[in-house]
This record gives sequence, structure tokens and C-alpha cells, in this order.
Amino acid sequence: MIRIGLFGYGNIAKGVECAVKQNKDMEIACVFTRRAPETVTTISGAPVYRTDDVLDHKGDVDVLIMCGGSATDLPEQTPAMAKHFNVVDSFDTHKNIPVHFDNVDAAAKEGGKIGVISVGWDPGMFSLNRLYGSAILVDGADYTFWGKGVSQGHSDAIRRVEGVLDARQYTIPVDAALDAVRSGSQPQLTTREKHTRECFVVAEEGADLKRIENDIVTMKNYFDEYDTTVHFISQEELDRDHKGIPHGGFVIRTGKTGKDLEHNNVIEYSLKLDSNPEFTSAVIVAYARAAYRMSNEGMVGCKTVFDIPPAYLSAKSGAELRKEML
Amino acid sequence: MIRIGLFGYGNIAKGVECAVKQNKDMEIACVFTRRAPETVTTISGAPVYRTDDVLDHKGDVDVLIMCGGSATDLPEQTPAMAKHFNVVDSFDTHKNIPVHFDNVDAAAKEGGKIGVISVGWDPGMFSLNRLYGSAILVDGADYTFWGKGVSQGHSDAIRRVEGVLDARQYTIPVDAALDAVRSGSQPQLTTREKHTRECFVVAEEGADLKRIENDIVTMKNYFDEYDTTVHFISQEELDRDHKGIPHGGFVIRTGKTGKDLEHNNVIEYSLKLDSNPEFTSAVIVAYARAAYRMSNEGMVGCKTVFDIPPAYLSAKSGAELRKEML
Repeated sequence: MIRIGLFGYGNIAKGVECAVKQNKDMEIACVFTRRAPETVTTISGAPVYRTDDVLDHKGDVDVLIMCGGSATDLPEQTPAMAKHFNVVDSFDTHKNIPVHFDNVDAAAKEGGKIGVISVGWDPGMFSLNRLYGSAILVDGADYTFWGKGVSQGHSDAIRRVEGVLDARQYTIPVDAALDAVRSGSQPQLTTREKHTRECFVVAEEGADLKRIENDIVTMKNYFDEYDTTVHFISQEELDRDHKGIPHGGFVIRTGKTGKDLEHNNVIEYSLKLDSNPEFTSAVIVAYARAAYRMSNEGMVGCKTVFDIPPAYLSAKSGAELRKEML
Repeated sequence: MIRIGLFGYGNIAKGVECAVKQNKDMEIACVFTRRAPETVTTISGAPVYRTDDVLDHKGDVDVLIMCGGSATDLPEQTPAMAKHFNVVDSFDTHKNIPVHFDNVDAAAKEGGKIGVISVGWDPGMFSLNRLYGSAILVDGADYTFWGKGVSQGHSDAIRRVEGVLDARQYTIPVDAALDAVRSGSQPQLTTREKHTRECFVVAEEGADLKRIENDIVTMKNYFDEYDTTVHFISQEELDRDHKGIPHGGFVIRTGKTGKDLEHNNVIEYSLKLDSNPEFTSAVIVAYARAAYRMSNEGMVGCKTVFDIPPAYLSAKSGAELRKEML
């Protein structure tokens, strides 16, 4: 059994607990939290310890999954833990990945461990499809669309607008843009042409709805470059109709082949997820298996989805995979 | 420069020549043919030698791409050449892959070479998506659909019917089946429910068209399990409207996540190819780069797409890939 530790206990950690239950070769060994351990009840029933005591449990954990946030937690925690544990994180601040890679690589090499970073669907499965697509169709272009799905960051931004009690924001890819990309014409698309944003907002009683709407649609970096629609609804409606965390998207690579580049080819990868954090967790768990195997084979250092042979993700043997899936 | 040799000179070899031209780090070193070399003119202008003389050119070739057929050529040729060259083939007889793997593995290890087998889109990219999908969504089901595209084997089978001069057969996935799969309901689908077959046939003058149609739609192993439509057209129409070799298809994995498996998730990978052999060749060329790199790192033996880290396919460095694509 691969013994999984969870460092942090939020949505991703709970998703990992559910995913581990679906994998017969793994178990949740323990959970580490900054809260008082006695106040935390885990889905799996695994014991809960203080993050301060994590090094006391080095012998209990084969792979430690880092479940903190990308803004401030993971940049510190993943390198710190990679000195002592095989770790997997879902660090998703794209522009800081090179620095994070270097930090985790140095720490993991110092400790003789494997550190797998930026696992999930973007970065993660979408990144893989950008790589495979561009390596195959060299003369081409790739496009990533997100949605339809809930953007937590944008929902939070709306909640900070004066007079807003609660909100949920959906990112929606524009069908006409998807069709233009699939045609193989390699269009140049603006931010506005690719996605729209739809907001469901609960306002305080008596609030100025026109002003709230204007504050939202003109918000810099979040909404000003998009066509944004705002719907005011009641808290009951929000809770009833918008409590899920669905997401998804598309990675499309189009490219030309042939003597005179006369043939168009389209590679399309898409996800339609009822639960964004649970799917992310399911990807993380598969890469935790890979981390365990790589470590057992004596590999060390930082790895991303680009560096890991696909077979390492599956519980099946190489011979089974060749027979059943190749 | 990675020096590519081509063993055999048919559609795949010509596709490889076109693809190599699109990759700045590769060149076609030479072509080997069973025909008289002076009768063969290559697209790339590369020199042509007899297959009997291939061992004289061991020093000229970094990776030898095996371009013969899966029925009789590759089972013999790939192991024979893997003793002397790094090789890549597109062996696609799914049920014989385990034996082929063992043969190539033994030969490649004997010669200290890398042998990459069964590269293309199915087996190949579709296999990868079956593996990734099932490793992530453990409680689920996967489905492979082919088409719309030309099946060479079925077209050949029609041409063997008495009174048929020429023919082209299209395999077409059934939209209702695709929709049922995408719903996440994990339907059981029969062969007839998944695909239809459409045939364009040029008959001899005065031939009994009713009998030809009946011979086709009742043909065992090829058409009897499908709903098949037969259209009789002229040779001019066939040449004008059906000379391309398009293909494609879908790999869809659906699976459940969550505490009570209450969430559905859909992963869909699809290809829409104007040229089936050129796309296959483009995949082969990316894996030739991987073979070259693995060999340079001292790895030996047989590999499939399951065993090869994605980064090895790209001409970009690890740092570039992390910065631009992760």
C-alpha cells in the first residue's frame, strides 16, 4: 500500500481522500493541519496531526500531498517538505513555475526525494496536451479555452464589491471562437473574443444595483476586457442553483502537414467536470503513485507532468497496459 | 542534426519525409527499398539504397523508421533492425503487440539500441488517452470511436467483390452513441450502435448492382455487424470526391468522483485529420526524436508511448517547456 499524507485540509485534500478510496493500492496515512487537530474530522478517518509535528511522521508517509494555496503556502511549504518527503503539489501560478521548480528541485535533491509540482488539469493535463500537440503538429497553433465553469478568484472579487453579499462567476468559452479555431484557420483571438463572464450576485437589501453592476463589469484585470453579464438573484437561488464547482475547457492544436502543407489536422482535448477540485485531486493521486514508483527506482529531484512516463500513473503493469490499452 | 533513415518507401515514409522537413533538428539521411533504388525518387532528395545493404549504413543513421506493413513486414523487420539501429515502427495489429514487444525488446537489448513500437494515433495517441483517462478516473469507462474516415482494409475488401472496379469505404461514428457516452451514463454499446459504414463503389458496366450491394453488406467480419450504405458512382466521381485519406476519431473517458461518487466527469480526446498517413508520420517523427535522446542517455530495449516521458518528444528544452507550456 502506498501511504499518502495530506499537508493541509481543504477542498483538494478532501478530494484526495475520495480519490484514494477509489484506488486499491493506496491509503490515507494521516493529515496535517494548522488548526487544532481535535477540531478536524477527516472523511477517511485518518489521524490528524499538527503541521509542526510533520517530521515526527516521516516513517508513516510514502508521499506527502501538499494541499495549500499557490499564493503563499506552496512556494514555502513544497520546498520545505521536499527535503524530507516525496511530495506532489498543484502549484498553479503559471508565471512562477520556473522558480518554484528550481526551489523544489534543489530541496528534493538535497533530501534524496521526488517532488512533483503543478499537477492537476491546468497546469497538468492541459499542459500535456499543449506539449503533445505542438510536438506532433509543428506548423500550427494551440488554443486553450476554459469553462463553462466557476472561477473562484472572480467570484471572490465580486464579493469584495460594496453592497454584495455573495456571488458566483462562470467563465464561458465563446462558441464562435471555438468553431473558428477548429476550422484550422489559426485565427488571432482577443481576450474578449475567447470568453464571456456571467455573474450571479446577491445584493444587500436596498443596494444600488446599477452601481454594483457597473463596478463589476469595469473591474480592472478581472472583467474590463470581457463581455460580462450580471444577474441579481436571492441567496436562496444562489444556494439552490449555483453551489456546485463545475469546470472544464478545451485545448485545441491545429496544424498543417504534407508536401505543400496542404492538409489540415485538428487535435482537441476537452474536460467537462462536475467537480473541479475532485478532478484535480484525482490527477494528483495518479501522480502520487508515479512519485512513489520513481522514488523506489532511485530517482530524485523535481518533476512535472512533462517528465513522467505515462505508465507510472497506472496501477496496472506494463504488460497489462500493452495488452489492454495500447 | 538527428539523421533519420527510412526502411521502406510507401505512404508512411513519404509522410515522414514531409514531417522531417518541418523539424529543424532532423534530416533524412537515406532511404532503403526492396525495389531497384534507381527507380525510386524521394521527396527529400535523400539517397536510396537496397534494403539488403542496410548494414553498410549503420554509421549514417541515428534512428531508422520502419515503414513496412504490420501484417508481414514489421514482425520480421523491426526486431531484425533493432539489433543494429534505434528503430521506430507503427505496428498496429493490437492483439499481437505483446509478442512484438518481446521480440523487439530482446533484439534491442542485444544490440544496445532503443526500439519504439506501435507509434501513431491508434495505437499511439489514442492509447495514451485511454491510459491517462483510466488512471485519473478510476471508476469509469472508456470508449474509442473511429472516423469519419477512410478504412483502407474495408476499401480493399470491397474491391475484391466480383464486378467491382474501385471502391472507397468510410467509417462513421454514430452521433447518438457519442452523445450517450458523453452523458456519463456509461452505456453498453453494440458494434452496430457505435459506427456505420458508407461505401462508394465503381462497378463494371452491366454488373448486377443488387448482387454487389448484397455481397458487401453481408460480408463477414467486415460489414455484417454494421449498418452499411452502398452508393454506386463513376470512376470520375470517385477520383474527384474521394481521393483523400482523411480519418480521425474520439477517445472518451467518463468517470465518477466524490464522497458518494455523485459527480460525473468527462475527458474527451479527438482527432480530425485531412491526412491519416501524414499525421501518423508526424507522430512517428516526434517519437524518433525521443528514441534518439533515450539512446544518447544510455537507455536500451523496447519502449511504447506509455514508457516515454512527454518532454522527450519536443525539440524544446525542459526549461522552455515549463516556461511556455506548463
